[in-house]
Amino acid sequence: MGRPPAPQAVVLSVGSELLAGETVDTNAAFLGGRLRDLGVDLTEVRQLPDDRAVLAAAFRQAGGAADIVLVTGGLGPTHDDLTREGLADALGEKLAADPVLEDELRERFGRLGSMPATNLRQAMRIPSADALPNPIGSAPGWWLDRGTEAVIALMPGVPSEMRRMFDEQVAPRLAGRLGPVPLHVRTLKTFGIGESAVAELLGPLLEEPGDGVISGIYARDDGVHLRFTTREDPAAVDAAAARVRQVMGDRLWGEDGDDLAFVALTRFAAAGCATVASWEADTGGALLAALSAATPTGPAASYVGGVLDSGGAPAAPAADGCVQLSLLPEDSRGRSRVRVAVSGRVAVPREELRIHGSGPQRLRRAAFAALDHVRRSLPPG
Amino acid sequence: MGRPPAPQAVVLSVGSELLAGETVDTNAAFLGGRLRDLGVDLTEVRQLPDDRAVLAAAFRQAGGAADIVLVTGGLGPTHDDLTREGLADALGEKLAADPVLEDELRERFGRLGSMPATNLRQAMRIPSADALPNPIGSAPGWWLDRGTEAVIALMPGVPSEMRRMFDEQVAPRLAGRLGPVPLHVRTLKTFGIGESAVAELLGPLLEEPGDGVISGIYARDDGVHLRFTTREDPAAVDAAAARVRQVMGDRLWGEDGDDLAFVALTRFAAAGCATVASWEADTGGALLAALSAATPTGPAASYVGGVLDSGGAPAAPAADGCVQLSLLPEDSRGRSRVRVAVSGRVAVPREELRIHGSGPQRLRRAAFAALDHVRRSLPPG
Repeated sequence: MGRPPAPQAVVLSVGSELLAGETVDTNAAFLGGRLRDLGVDLTEVRQLPDDRAVLAAAFRQAGGAADIVLVTGGLGPTHDDLTREGLADALGEKLAADPVLEDELRERFGRLGSMPATNLRQAMRIPSADALPNPIGSAPGWWLDRGTEAVIALMPGVPSEMRRMFDEQVAPRLAGRLGPVPLHVRTLKTFGIGESAVAELLGPLLEEPGDGVISGIYARDDGVHLRFTTREDPAAVDAAAARVRQVMGDRLWGEDGDDLAFVALTRFAAAGCATVASWEADTGGALLAALSAATPTGPAASYVGGVLDSGGAPAAPAADGCVQLSLLPEDSRGRSRVRVAVSGRVAVPREELRIHGSGPQRLRRAAFAALDHVRRSLPPG
Repeated sequence: MGRPPAPQAVVLSVGSELLAGETVDTNAAFLGGRLRDLGVDLTEVRQLPDDRAVLAAAFRQAGGAADIVLVTGGLGPTHDDLTREGLADALGEKLAADPVLEDELRERFGRLGSMPATNLRQAMRIPSADALPNPIGSAPGWWLDRGTEAVIALMPGVPSEMRRMFDEQVAPRLAGRLGPVPLHVRTLKTFGIGESAVAELLGPLLEEPGDGVISGIYARDDGVHLRFTTREDPAAVDAAAARVRQVMGDRLWGEDGDDLAFVALTRFAAAGCATVASWEADTGGALLAALSAATPTGPAASYVGGVLDSGGAPAAPAADGCVQLSLLPEDSRGRSRVRVAVSGRVAVPREELRIHGSGPQRLRRAAFAALDHVRRSLPPG
């Protein structure tokens, strides 16, 4: 049953704004998910400042410890963008202007006006780096594969640019370099039960989930998720999932890519509603954000829009069903409750539900509590 | 002019779910901002897996490199929560059940039902750790100050629990231990101009911002921000800010804690509107989320609510002014535009504006483009 060892990756997120708390590093989570799908183990993420010597040391260390080093940020045009310099120092190579990159940059800016001189820094390259095109930004990426050491990819820090460059340029190169190492993943999603209660109910199934299977349990805004992964026999994760379904019953609302808003919209469709609207108060629009993000496909009702009432008494659009959500004031112990109801062709009496968390998380959890209430109240059809 | 060296901190974010891309590490950004306010340099953030040996090695390394080690996550009740064990190994101490913590946990669960046996792990402690109370969760934190080495704080990974524990328990202990090292910060916020164009306009002001002043430039959803910080003479950051105001003129919409939605609401008030509503299409509610998050105070109009139109043609609530925003389809090159207008007592003709980015970021930027359009169209009064 021995499996080949998975390639190991390290992500370096570069930018003093990350360490100053100005920016949340969403890039690392994106790359973590993509690497998992490629069968690569992400062993560490480091957030590092815009400091040439610190970056050079981190590149040296990462290159010795991992098979793949993915770097985001520090490729901008300004004096504090030092990722290129740090890597050049670590490898003992010299930066020089690449005339092809310079032409491309000038052409890009030609469409927008003249190019600021600082952008010339983005046309610099070291000899062993291949440039990776960036169709939606001025910073090209770099790809380094010197054969015997870790492969290294430098990508911009702007999330939209980084994601496109990873998917279009870096992922195919990684797959070609590593060969496929398929990973089988099964995620099960619950709502309305705490993480430790789930762990207690499932007991040994989490601690010994089967031969070659790794289990994980995660508290998310849309409930507690269970994940089983293996690089060996996929039947083992299916068997673990089957046992979870048996134990968790109706507390389980979905699996893998399922989305609670979409599940709620399918319940409306099963109850004879072709259209759904929403009304909410004091939740910052979290319910309409979740419903409008659900991909409309076959068996689900169409979401036609929603209102956030901040005192102006707007009317929800006409629809066959309407989800209603209000955040109630905190009680004296700081605990939050929401009031949820459904009106229209399928009336569900209003009910008060406890929610946890604070800040934007509390608002998202309020929305998911409303959607889970719809799921539990309307039959699957 | 020599300043005392700032204390240095490292943040360790523990949890395999971070590395699997299941969870975005918002805790690190929160702590980065708080540490900056305390005058502490955050030199690195590391995201680490739930692996006892990896954690022990990371604790040893961080304790040797920094004055302060802040750790979040891995304090849960389940078998994969190993932060306590990792730190015990690193320090060569033994974990033992703390009867006081156990009583507190049982009392907490007594209110909710019986305590799952797995939660007993959360009552374990090493001799040199003081427990930090967690009034909103089951995981107590730890505080270690052995006098000569780095101080270490372990906090839960759940953001609401971590934030409260940091503010109420850890920050006062850090301030007591370190003495105040005041940091002077001035942030200036622009909209409608790219990062490299800002750098070009400001030139040497960013590269040599003044004696003891550090400058930074950050592309955010609400525009490009400039930040100047010093631990020396606060007049130096004020002087840099004054020069930026001169150069940037009307492209500057605010400073420090200013919020673009609030600025737009003050412009409505100056134009004689007491109430404001919003209507948006295809933006997932980003505009109403921004407007409803603006803290209503003195000179601003009241936001009374908004609608997201996903095909149901809801009417915006009656108000003196209404911001209207539609995301237009992408053009053939994948570029996005929005259509923005204001109706009501202060009509602003509709205009199309270019926006950048993709995914949720594109929607937030669409909302900020609408709010900046309001700011530029209505006089400050």
